[in-house]
Amino acid sequence: MKTDPPVTALELHPADPLPERTQSYFDLCTEKLGFVPNVLKAYAFDIAKLDAFTALYNDLMLGESGLTKLEREMIAVAVSSINRCWYCQVAHGAAVRTISGDPALGEAMVMNWRVADLDARQTAMLSFAEKVTTESAKITEADRQTLRDAGFSDRDIWDIASVAGFFAMSNRVASAVGMEPNPDYHAEAR
Amino acid sequence: MKTDPPVTALELHPADPLPERTQSYFDLCTEKLGFVPNVLKAYAFDIAKLDAFTALYNDLMLGESGLTKLEREMIAVAVSSINRCWYCQVAHGAAVRTISGDPALGEAMVMNWRVADLDARQTAMLSFAEKVTTESAKITEADRQTLRDAGFSDRDIWDIASVAGFFAMSNRVASAVGMEPNPDYHAEAR
Amino acid sequence: MKTDPPVTALELHPADPLPERTQSYFDLCTEKLGFVPNVLKAYAFDIAKLDAFTALYNDLMLGESGLTKLEREMIAVAVSSINRCWYCQVAHGAAVRTISGDPALGEAMVMNWRVADLDARQTAMLSFAEKVTTESAKITEADRQTLRDAGFSDRDIWDIASVAGFFAMSNRVASAVGMEPNPDYHAEAR
Amino acid sequence: MKTDPPVTALELHPADPLPERTQSYFDLCTEKLGFVPNVLKAYAFDIAKLDAFTALYNDLMLGESGLTKLEREMIAVAVSSINRCWYCQVAHGAAVRTISGDPALGEAMVMNWRVADLDARQTAMLSFAEKVTTESAKITEADRQTLRDAGFSDRDIWDIASVAGFFAMSNRVASAVGMEPNPDYHAEAR
Amino acid sequence: MKTDPPVTALELHPADPLPERTQSYFDLCTEKLGFVPNVLKAYAFDIAKLDAFTALYNDLMLGESGLTKLEREMIAVAVSSINRCWYCQVAHGAAVRTISGDPALGEAMVMNWRVADLDARQTAMLSFAEKVTTESAKITEADRQTLRDAGFSDRDIWDIASVAGFFAMSNRVASAVGMEPNPDYHAEAR
Amino acid sequence: MKTDPPVTALELHPADPLPERTQSYFDLCTEKLGFVPNVLKAYAFDIAKLDAFTALYNDLMLGESGLTKLEREMIAVAVSSINRCWYCQVAHGAAVRTISGDPALGEAMVMNWRVADLDARQTAMLSFAEKVTTESAKITEADRQTLRDAGFSDRDIWDIASVAGFFAMSNRVASAVGMEPNPDYHAEAR
Repeated sequence: MKTDPPVTALELHPADPLPERTQSYFDLCTEKLGFVPNVLKAYAFDIAKLDAFTALYNDLMLGESGLTKLEREMIAVAVSSINRCWYCQVAHGAAVRTISGDPALGEAMVMNWRVADLDARQTAMLSFAEKVTTESAKITEADRQTLRDAGFSDRDIWDIASVAGFFAMSNRVASAVGMEPNPDYHAEAR
Repeated sequence: MKTDPPVTALELHPADPLPERTQSYFDLCTEKLGFVPNVLKAYAFDIAKLDAFTALYNDLMLGESGLTKLEREMIAVAVSSINRCWYCQVAHGAAVRTISGDPALGEAMVMNWRVADLDARQTAMLSFAEKVTTESAKITEADRQTLRDAGFSDRDIWDIASVAGFFAMSNRVASAVGMEPNPDYHAEAR
Repeated sequence: MKTDPPVTALELHPADPLPERTQSYFDLCTEKLGFVPNVLKAYAFDIAKLDAFTALYNDLMLGESGLTKLEREMIAVAVSSINRCWYCQVAHGAAVRTISGDPALGEAMVMNWRVADLDARQTAMLSFAEKVTTESAKITEADRQTLRDAGFSDRDIWDIASVAGFFAMSNRVASAVGMEPNPDYHAEAR
Repeated sequence: MKTDPPVTALELHPADPLPERTQSYFDLCTEKLGFVPNVLKAYAFDIAKLDAFTALYNDLMLGESGLTKLEREMIAVAVSSINRCWYCQVAHGAAVRTISGDPALGEAMVMNWRVADLDARQTAMLSFAEKVTTESAKITEADRQTLRDAGFSDRDIWDIASVAGFFAMSNRVASAVGMEPNPDYHAEAR
Repeated sequence: MKTDPPVTALELHPADPLPERTQSYFDLCTEKLGFVPNVLKAYAFDIAKLDAFTALYNDLMLGESGLTKLEREMIAVAVSSINRCWYCQVAHGAAVRTISGDPALGEAMVMNWRVADLDARQTAMLSFAEKVTTESAKITEADRQTLRDAGFSDRDIWDIASVAGFFAMSNRVASAVGMEPNPDYHAEAR
Repeated sequence: MKTDPPVTALELHPADPLPERTQSYFDLCTEKLGFVPNVLKAYAFDIAKLDAFTALYNDLMLGESGLTKLEREMIAVAVSSINRCWYCQVAHGAAVRTISGDPALGEAMVMNWRVADLDARQTAMLSFAEKVTTESAKITEADRQTLRDAGFSDRDIWDIASVAGFFAMSNRVASAVGMEPNPDYHAEAR
C-alpha cells in the first residue's frame, strides 16, 4: 500500500502488514465499493484510532436511527459544505447521489442546501444541523422544540446533533491533514 | 439513576440496568473522580454509542502521543472556549487546572488562550488548533510546516488536528442537547 | 416558452414573440449547447436588460484577455462558491469541467478552491478574486503588486477584478430571484 | 486626458482619440455635471467595456422602473456603504442628496441606513437589498413575499435585486482597481 | 510600587508619590479587597485619567440604578466574555460569584450566558447587552420596546446600554495594553 | 429645553433647571459652536453621569497627548464608521473636516479609512485602532511593537487604545438609545 499515491499530506503510513481483521475489512470495501476509502487508509497508521473512528462512524451513519440513511448523508454533506471539506463533500456527495438516485440533490447539498426541494421535516433537520455547525452555543430549548414540532423524537434530535457533530470533527481532521478523496467518487451516480 | 437531575434537555435515560462492564466503568469513575461524568450518563441510553464515544475519547486524550496530557487538555479547553461549550469548558477547564496545578492557566484557556504565558511550541500548537476550529478549509501546507518547524512530528500534527476535531464534535453535541456538567468541577483545583 | 417550467421564482415571462435577433441568439444556444441557458430566459422579459447583460457577459468571459477562458471560468466558480449561488456553480462548474477536461478541477472550484493543484500564478489570481469577493474594501496597492509579481499586467488585474465583480452581481441576482439552472448541466463532462 | 490625475491605481489610459460617439457622451457629461465621472474615464481604455458598463448602468439606474430614481440611488448607497466602496459612496451619496434635496438622507445612507426616517416600503426595500448584499444565498421565498406584502411587484423585486447586484459588482471593481471619485462630488448638495 | 510586577505591557508607572487623595483610595482598596485592583494602578500614571475612569465606573456600577449590582456585574462579564477580555472576565467574574454566592453563575457568564438559569427579565437584559456588544448599529426601537415589555424603564435601558458600553471600552483598553488581573481574583468565591 | 425635538428615543429629560455650572457649560457650547451637542443634552437627565462623561471625553480628546487633536478625531471617526454609529460619524466627521480643512479626509474616515492618503505613522495608528475595535482579544505584543516602530511612545499607545475604546463605548450608547446628532453638523466645513 505504501506505493499508492499519498492520501494525506502527512508522512504516516498504514500498519504493514495490517491486522487480519483490518485487511478483511479493507478487502470487503474493495469488493463492495471498488476501492478502500482513503479516510480508512489515512487512519490505518494506528489501528486503535482506525477502530475507534470506524466504530463511531458505522454506528452513526449505518446503525438504527429515526433518520434514514439518506437523511444522515444529507446532513453530512450540508455540514461538510459549510466547512468546505474537500474529502467529505466528494465522498458523501456521491453517497447522496447514489442513495437518492437524484444527482441534483447531491449537488444542492454541496452548493446550497436551501435550494433543494425539501419538505418541512427535512428543512427543520438541516436548519438545526446548520445551527449546530455554525453557532452551536446559541442553541436553546426553542430550537429543540422546533424539531419536535416537525415530528422528530428526542432520540432523533440526538442523532441529528451527533451526525452534524461527527462531520464537524471529520471535516476538520480531513482538512487539517490534507486528506485526498479517492478519485472514483467524482463520476459516481451523475 | 433516573432520579438524578437530568443531564441533558432530552428525554433519554441510561439503559437500566447498565451492562455489567458499563456499571464497572461508572463505578471506577465514582471511585476515582467522586462522580460519573455527565457526558457518560448522557450517552448511556445507547451502550453502542457510549462505547464508541469512550473508545475514541480515551485513545485521543489518554493514549500515547507526542503531546502531553496537559497539552491535549489545553487544546480541549481552547477549542471549547471558541465554541462556547458550557459542558466542555467546565469539565476540561478543571482538568487543565488539576493537571497543571496552575488555576490561572485553566482560566486563561477558557477566557483567551493568547494571554497565557506559553512557549513557542505551545503557541504554535494552539494557533493551529484555533485555525482547525474556525477556518479549517483554509489550512494549507504552510500551516503544517509551521508546526514541524516548532518541533512537532507528522504524528503530532495528526494528534493536534484530532483533539481539536474531537472537541469540534463534542462541543456541538453537548450544546445541541443541552448537556449539564457535574457541579463538582467548579471548585476543583482553584 | 411560457409552458416551460419556471426559471425563477418571479412571475416574469419572456417577451412574446421575442425580437428576431433574440430568437436567433436563443436558436444558436440550442444548436450549440442543446438548450437555452435559463439566465437568458430569465432576463428575456425585458430585451434591453437581456442585451445589456449579454453584452457585458460576452465581453468579459469570451472577449480578448490575458486570462484564458478557463481561468475566467475558474474565477466564476470560486466566487460563486463563496456566495453559494446555485445557478452559477452549476452552470460554470460544468464550464470548468468541459474546458479543462478535468472533472475534479470543476469540483474543487465548487468545494474549496484551495485544494486544487494550482501554480503560483493561478493561486495569486484566485486569492485576489477571493479578496475582491469577501473584503474588497481592504484591497490595497500591496494586493495589486502581488498580482504584478505573479506575472499579471494591469489590464489582467482589471479583468480579474471585473470577472470577480461580475459574479458578485450575477450570483446575487440569481439567488435573489430564485433562478434555477438547466438540469442539463449536472451530467456534463463528469 | 493623459495629463489628468490618475483615476485608478492601474496603468490603463483612455483610448486616444476617443471614438466620436464616446467623446460626445463625455462632452455631454461635462456640460451637465461639470465633469466626466471618473468611472467612465476608467473604463475608457476599452470602449467595448465602457459601452457594456454604461448600457447596463443606464438601463438600471435611469430606465423605467417601479422604483423611483431616488430609491435606486438609496439602494446604491446603502449597498456601497456595506461594501465600503469609496468611489460609489461619494458619487451616489451626492446623487441621493441632490435628488432628495435632503443632505441628511444622503449621509444616513452612507453611515447607517437604519437611522433614516423611512416608510415601511422603503425599509423593506433596503432590508432586502442588505440581505442581497450580505447573505444572498439565504434568500428564500419568504423574503420575496415580504416585498410583495410591502407593495412591490415581481418586476420591482427584479429591479431591487439588480440594483443591489450591480453595486456588488461596481463596488468591487472600484475598490479592486483603486478608483478615485471626482472631488467635485464632496461639496454637492450639502 | 515600581517594584511590583508590571500591570500592563506598557512602560507607564504610577505617579510617585501618589496624590494624597489617590493614596487614600488605594489604601481603602487594600483594606476592603486585600489589594489594589490593577486597573487602578494602570491608570495611575496620569491622575486625571484615573479620576475620570473611576468617576465613570463608580457611577455606573455602584450608583443608583433600577438594575441590581449583580445584574450590572452579569452584564459586565457577559460583555467581557464576548470580547474575550482577560482582565475583566477575571475581575468581574469574581464579582458575580461573590455577590450572587453562586460560583456556577459566574462561570456561566464567562463561558456562555445562555446556559444560565435566568428569568425572562434577565434574559432580555443580556440579549440586549449582547446586541449592544456585537451589532449596536442594528438596534432599533423594537429592541428597546422588548426591554420595556420585560419591565425595564427608559432609565434602565440607558443603564443597560451604558454598562455594556463601558465594558466595550474597558475590555478594549485592557486587551490593547496587556493588562493583567490581580491573581487574587482566581480563588475568590469558588 | 423640553420643547426641543427629542435627542434620543428614550423618555429622559434634562434636569430642570440645570445646575448653574452645567448651564454655563451649555451656554459656552452655544456661544462657541452655535448649539449644545445633543450628546450633552442626552446625558443631562443625570448630572453625575454628564459630568463623568464630559470629564473622560475632555481629557481624552482635548487634553495633552502625543497624538494631535486631528489624529484623535480621525480615530474617533474610523472607529465610529466600523460601528456605524450615526451620531458619532456625523459629529466627529464634521470635526475632522473642520480641523483638517480637508473635507475629503472627513469623508474618507467615514467611508473607508484605507483610501485616505496617510503616512506610515497614521496608517499604523488607524490599523491598531481598527484591531482594537474589531478583535481586541487578538492584540499581542507584536501589535504594540509595530506602533513603537512607527514612532509612538508607550503613552501614545495608551492614548490610541483609549480613544478607540472610548468610541467603542460612545458608539454603542448612542446607537442603543437612538441618539440624534444636531443637524448643524451636516453642512460644516464641506
